[in-house]
Amino acid sequence: MTPAPQAVLQDDDVRRAAAALRPDRPLDDVIARVAWGVLTEPGDGTAGALVAQCGPLEALQLAFGGDAEEEHHRAVRDGRKRWLPRWDTALIRAAMDAALRCRAQLLLPGDAAWPAGLDDLDGHAPHVLWVRGDAGALGRAHGAVAIVGARAATAYGEHVAADFAGGLTDRGFLVISGGAYGIDGAAHRAVLRAGGDTVAFLAGGVDRAYPAGHAQLLQSVAGTGAVLSEVPCGTAPTKWRFLARNRLIAAAAHATVVVEAGARSGSLNTAGHAASLGRPLGAVPGSITSAASMGCHRLLREYDARCVTSVDDVVELMGLSHGLGEAAQVPPRGPHDAELVRLGDALSARAPREPLDLARRSGLSIERVEALLGLLMLEGTVQRGAGGWRRV
Amino acid sequence: MTPAPQAVLQDDDVRRAAAALRPDRPLDDVIARVAWGVLTEPGDGTAGALVAQCGPLEALQLAFGGDAEEEHHRAVRDGRKRWLPRWDTALIRAAMDAALRCRAQLLLPGDAAWPAGLDDLDGHAPHVLWVRGDAGALGRAHGAVAIVGARAATAYGEHVAADFAGGLTDRGFLVISGGAYGIDGAAHRAVLRAGGDTVAFLAGGVDRAYPAGHAQLLQSVAGTGAVLSEVPCGTAPTKWRFLARNRLIAAAAHATVVVEAGARSGSLNTAGHAASLGRPLGAVPGSITSAASMGCHRLLREYDARCVTSVDDVVELMGLSHGLGEAAQVPPRGPHDAELVRLGDALSARAPREPLDLARRSGLSIERVEALLGLLMLEGTVQRGAGGWRRV
Repeated sequence: MTPAPQAVLQDDDVRRAAAALRPDRPLDDVIARVAWGVLTEPGDGTAGALVAQCGPLEALQLAFGGDAEEEHHRAVRDGRKRWLPRWDTALIRAAMDAALRCRAQLLLPGDAAWPAGLDDLDGHAPHVLWVRGDAGALGRAHGAVAIVGARAATAYGEHVAADFAGGLTDRGFLVISGGAYGIDGAAHRAVLRAGGDTVAFLAGGVDRAYPAGHAQLLQSVAGTGAVLSEVPCGTAPTKWRFLARNRLIAAAAHATVVVEAGARSGSLNTAGHAASLGRPLGAVPGSITSAASMGCHRLLREYDARCVTSVDDVVELMGLSHGLGEAAQVPPRGPHDAELVRLGDALSARAPREPLDLARRSGLSIERVEALLGLLMLEGTVQRGAGGWRRV
Repeated sequence: MTPAPQAVLQDDDVRRAAAALRPDRPLDDVIARVAWGVLTEPGDGTAGALVAQCGPLEALQLAFGGDAEEEHHRAVRDGRKRWLPRWDTALIRAAMDAALRCRAQLLLPGDAAWPAGLDDLDGHAPHVLWVRGDAGALGRAHGAVAIVGARAATAYGEHVAADFAGGLTDRGFLVISGGAYGIDGAAHRAVLRAGGDTVAFLAGGVDRAYPAGHAQLLQSVAGTGAVLSEVPCGTAPTKWRFLARNRLIAAAAHATVVVEAGARSGSLNTAGHAASLGRPLGAVPGSITSAASMGCHRLLREYDARCVTSVDDVVELMGLSHGLGEAAQVPPRGPHDAELVRLGDALSARAPREPLDLARRSGLSIERVEALLGLLMLEGTVQRGAGGWRRV
């Protein structure tokens, strides 16, 4: 029943694609890392720990090579159940082919251009990064600031984001953001206007412009800077992947500034990652009557974010950075909530889906999918029909 | 040369006025405390320490009674030089008469209505308080919040001040402010609209409506709440007295909230007092493009003020109060700067004044006035003419 890693490692097409992507690295290593990126959802701590401990190749052998299942730690046994539904040579080959087709580069840990800050994520660091544009952009600036915020930004927020991003560019800093509407877009655009490089981390594949309305902007970002993602080309952005992507933004930057954020904005999640990583966190204040500033005020009040009101303040904030690659470990989040988000992403309201399909999409084990479906059924949020499960 | 305290204590008119003001307290004590209030500028730490140590009467005897000047501490000798220019029975009698004329009450340390928080000022606590309205107002509420801010407030700031003040009144808290235009006025008015009591601390005498445009408002404040001052009726508000008044607002309140403040607003001074007294300090954020919020953002960034965005936040802020009468000691400020402010207040650009006159007005010794005038002359900010010194 258990697939042999050899099937993937010895596949001719896979080897040819790997050689085209990274002729400079041992093919087995390249293939194994890409495989881990395909098999897991972003931030899978078990896979991350396993790879960190014994390297990507040995980790594959350990997880799938033997049949002495009882020898494994419980975490790895559970992990294998999540990874098995995605074990498919075709999927790994497809990831590489898609990258070659859209000319995405493959960045691997250990590369000079690999963002040093990602190492602070330890077991939650990505296995690979897919890059459109200049992979070296992150390393060129003498400091990187994440400027993030609400999609539903106000004119005030977009003005401040543009002002900060332009000013930081003028001073030689790199601006990182998430390519979204609102604050993110205003920041990227201001950098480009100022003639600088900027970097966007996406939740989906780098070949999928998301949002579609930012296709042109992301193209421009990739033109001088870079668009990066840890998920393979062709992968759809999901709620979970947005949350997971936020940790990359926070970790790759020396400091994070939230310009505007509603009370439940996703950028509070980025801020939370920055704080847990020990990165300096800034929040821009605004009118207390503006819903778009509520999240920033919460950061000031509850997360000890620093009040930043000018480019000077942001530069001062970066001075509080202890450098990258030496931060505290990210505290583990509740796995249950995360899994529910991922299962929710995988469910459709129209198309009914079978547990195996849901397991592949969510990166969870079939067992876990079935358990969570039972829970959601009790809550009345999913329903079993003819062709499988769907969201109600 | 040295006047005997007996001259004042035995003056019939003085005794009659003191008896009218406070028939319930020993007359000598009443007169001595009023005398100290007249002889000193607010916050004179030497006088405060002397009175705290040996009582107001003994302190008078000690400072003026003997001629064994060499027995005194240096601080007291220096103090006497500041107090002597004002040693005048007529001045003390005038203070009492003015209070009787405008029906101001005399509140003394030890009175039930004496604001407990003022004790945290130690040697810088006032000798007396002159009150128009209900002296008991400060004690009635279950908590007092100072709501202060810029005179040059925006519509946003006045809206927030009114919103907070009204909401706090509804919840049974007392709102303290300074009676000024802008934030102060908006706060007082909102309390009155909500049918509550509010308290205003003035920098000049309680019979002098300052600003004049707030005469009606201050009348209304005194109608249900109280208007208080530590300086005698008839005293003009000066820059120094505004700064000194701010310490009373901060000390009398359980928490201080700055709603709007320019980069150099006087309310930052109140905030500084609140912080040194260990009182919880809140600041309302605003647009970073608004000059009227710059001071608040500085408080958030540099003074660890708490970001308050709602009445709930202010109530929570008060919960951080350790109660009044048990705070840390106020750190001494640079006496030199304070003296220059006081001398500046005493100087006129039109009327030339002699050092004795300037000493009386500023509450400094003639010696000190002359030394400071020398300094200011070097700086080119004062000029000696026919009738004395004047500001250039």
